[in-house]
Amino acid sequence: MKERKELLYLQIANTIEQQIKNEILKVGDKLPSLRTISNEKGVSLSTASQSYFELESRGLIESRPQSGYYVSYTHKRFRSMPGTSQPIIAKAEEDVEDLIATVTNNSRKAHIMLSTGVPSSALLPIAKLNKAIVNATRSLPDSGIDYERFGNQKLKKQIALRSLLWGGSLSEEDIIPTSGCMNALSFCMLSLTQKGDTIAVESPVYFGILQLAKNIGLKVLELPTNPVNGIEVDALKKALERKKVKLCLLVSNFSNPIGSCMPDEHKKAVVELMEHHNVPLIEDDLFAELYFGPHRPTSCKTYDESGIVLWCGSFSKTLSPGYRVGWVAPGKFKKEVERTKLYHSLYCNSITHEAVGSFLENDRYENHLRKLRQTLYKNSLQFLRSISEYFPDDTKVTRPKGGLHLWIELNKKVNTVELYNKAIQQNIGIAPGRMYSLQNQYNNCFKINSGLIWDNKIEHALKELGRLATP
Amino acid sequence: MKERKELLYLQIANTIEQQIKNEILKVGDKLPSLRTISNEKGVSLSTASQSYFELESRGLIESRPQSGYYVSYTHKRFRSMPGTSQPIIAKAEEDVEDLIATVTNNSRKAHIMLSTGVPSSALLPIAKLNKAIVNATRSLPDSGIDYERFGNQKLKKQIALRSLLWGGSLSEEDIIPTSGCMNALSFCMLSLTQKGDTIAVESPVYFGILQLAKNIGLKVLELPTNPVNGIEVDALKKALERKKVKLCLLVSNFSNPIGSCMPDEHKKAVVELMEHHNVPLIEDDLFAELYFGPHRPTSCKTYDESGIVLWCGSFSKTLSPGYRVGWVAPGKFKKEVERTKLYHSLYCNSITHEAVGSFLENDRYENHLRKLRQTLYKNSLQFLRSISEYFPDDTKVTRPKGGLHLWIELNKKVNTVELYNKAIQQNIGIAPGRMYSLQNQYNNCFKINSGLIWDNKIEHALKELGRLATP
Repeated sequence: MKERKELLYLQIANTIEQQIKNEILKVGDKLPSLRTISNEKGVSLSTASQSYFELESRGLIESRPQSGYYVSYTHKRFRSMPGTSQPIIAKAEEDVEDLIATVTNNSRKAHIMLSTGVPSSALLPIAKLNKAIVNATRSLPDSGIDYERFGNQKLKKQIALRSLLWGGSLSEEDIIPTSGCMNALSFCMLSLTQKGDTIAVESPVYFGILQLAKNIGLKVLELPTNPVNGIEVDALKKALERKKVKLCLLVSNFSNPIGSCMPDEHKKAVVELMEHHNVPLIEDDLFAELYFGPHRPTSCKTYDESGIVLWCGSFSKTLSPGYRVGWVAPGKFKKEVERTKLYHSLYCNSITHEAVGSFLENDRYENHLRKLRQTLYKNSLQFLRSISEYFPDDTKVTRPKGGLHLWIELNKKVNTVELYNKAIQQNIGIAPGRMYSLQNQYNNCFKINSGLIWDNKIEHALKELGRLATP
Repeated sequence: MKERKELLYLQIANTIEQQIKNEILKVGDKLPSLRTISNEKGVSLSTASQSYFELESRGLIESRPQSGYYVSYTHKRFRSMPGTSQPIIAKAEEDVEDLIATVTNNSRKAHIMLSTGVPSSALLPIAKLNKAIVNATRSLPDSGIDYERFGNQKLKKQIALRSLLWGGSLSEEDIIPTSGCMNALSFCMLSLTQKGDTIAVESPVYFGILQLAKNIGLKVLELPTNPVNGIEVDALKKALERKKVKLCLLVSNFSNPIGSCMPDEHKKAVVELMEHHNVPLIEDDLFAELYFGPHRPTSCKTYDESGIVLWCGSFSKTLSPGYRVGWVAPGKFKKEVERTKLYHSLYCNSITHEAVGSFLENDRYENHLRKLRQTLYKNSLQFLRSISEYFPDDTKVTRPKGGLHLWIELNKKVNTVELYNKAIQQNIGIAPGRMYSLQNQYNNCFKINSGLIWDNKIEHALKELGRLATP
């Protein structure tokens, strides 16, 4: 019943949002009264008001005392989107280690942490996870003090089962648990590359991927990337034909920082390219579950028939970063990756892997995800509204369909490292764009994490950022 | 009081053991009656009988009904020790991956697991650790679901404090927590080596170290090693002078599989050599706490003044393999190792690192270690006695002063891979010597783990092994 009611009010809210998007309802238009809605749609008054509350929380309508509800907002008023990136393909690499170290370390000190890459702990099911930890010490042989030699069975099974949700058909034998997703990427790169090899990635791209590649001694080819559709398939095609690309790494869904989500046909095309050139694809798919729409997007792995895709993910963005629970389904490279894992770290943490494995066994995870997605979607709209309100007119901002990240492009005159230095003085942490490339670029861009509890403090912080960002 | 009593009976037992070792008491000699002991030493009868019970459990004396206690055994009757290894320095490397995989995977199936490298779970403080896990979820901010960004403070502090026990003087800032010791070795090797570099190690050496080195693309130089004193310092000296050794990795105390413990002067000499040639030393010191004597041995790190020693360890041999809690004190290479850790795995497991950190804060750890060491010592004597009793006369076996491992050298005619195959049929798991070298050698040797609960099953298994080992 509760379930059904929830669906009803969301249906109504979504229909009205559509009408606002299509400008059938324009800014300032009065909305039908709650009574009218309840009669028209044949729902209770409380359901009707729930749907209006939902729209209010999405920042789309507002109520005026003794008057009713009005459209406060249309997507037309969003700032325009950044264009496709045209990354520098220079040889010279500047060192940004120190900038990254500063930002990462300060991110703790900042009161308003807009620079991080994980959702606020307040959005995660701490109490239920604590129970799962205690149960894990009870259900595991020897309470989990022994090595967990073959990867947690529950975890592997549940990850395999969930692959049905995105058109995958994985079995538990395909899954290798890892200590988080970076750890999975590390095992894949160590297994498939040699010092001096070239790896192709999106641009801008999560700095951790650049640092890992550099640490192994790899050359990185940063390719043009569109904030909506992700990597430019033609650019990748040319790179594979021209350059000696040994490996490709893509964050196919809601990437950090640019938030792009590759359309199905792009995913399909990329996998075909990889197969044609026999180049492995590491798919870093750790944000896919955080979609704002009705369905989880597919993965490149969905279209992988030859086993050339190494599909990586983790529960750090949906359950608990601190548990270090991730995985890789390495396709035909299973033996290599399995051995790399064994040689570099032996086994994973018995207790937290069991805890997450059992957490996935019932509805807990889905229920949590449903709430989390709604909150993240509302937050992103609130962030977008505030940015449109408080930032200069020539500001550009992405409009992701999922995930945690907004990528903001300011006037070329503005240097976001300077913006960072000013903002951190006021305990506001942002992530300068320079961090997301090995080349000296994106100096007028920055990333913020919208996966926080929306409140006045944040709105104020964005207002302040907008002020500081005005040349 | 209890403490004092314990000390008394141990003092008496140790004195008598000394007399047996020095052959003041010979096999068959009758021991003073309990009453005599209690009068002479001025202790209660119960303390006297406790000390005899202790000697009995060490396999040194036996009681005969209506007669009294007799020396059942002297160290003279131990099998002789293997000599210093003379490893092949061949180029050709045979692949033992499959043998190692088989032995490791079967080790679970074997009822009598003599092949593993960790103490039996029954010797570890499971209940207390479970409490520590629950407390960790209470004491950590956000119950430990958040990243543990700077390494667990309690853990770093306690590891630093314990360094005083071996003449170290580490501070909290010197310690980088890792997900176990192999993970620490991996970070050190990835930080300090390039594909093609040569690394010098003991021989025989733990196969995990060989596999890790190979996985990174390193050449491995296996050097002559003495079962008592460890690596031959002269051989290492020559290697450093002749070869381009980029890095040296030593298990300085109670190594797996050979159980050697470097004397202080050797440790000092090796560190001086390393400094002289400016070659970093990775010290894999994960067994040091399992000493049988009165004091913990020193580490190479004890003599490190220039910061050239990267001191690695873990709690996998003393508390819980499954928790994945290890560390490295990388000396002057801290920045490199810190970054390698960050790039390849981000952070460690928040909960288990907090649990171990708090476990170390009071006497729990020391009390547990005292019991564990006594049990391991008694077991090793029982294993040695059984081997002497049941194995052919030309069998040689190590006599470690600590740790978990016995290295057994059989007649050249015996192939221990064949012995393994026969033994596993009877659910007895051993580790063939071939696993502990990249070269085709040690085919007449094998390793067994004496860190188990001693019982008739094990004695029977050793009897059976002795039979199978007879050509």
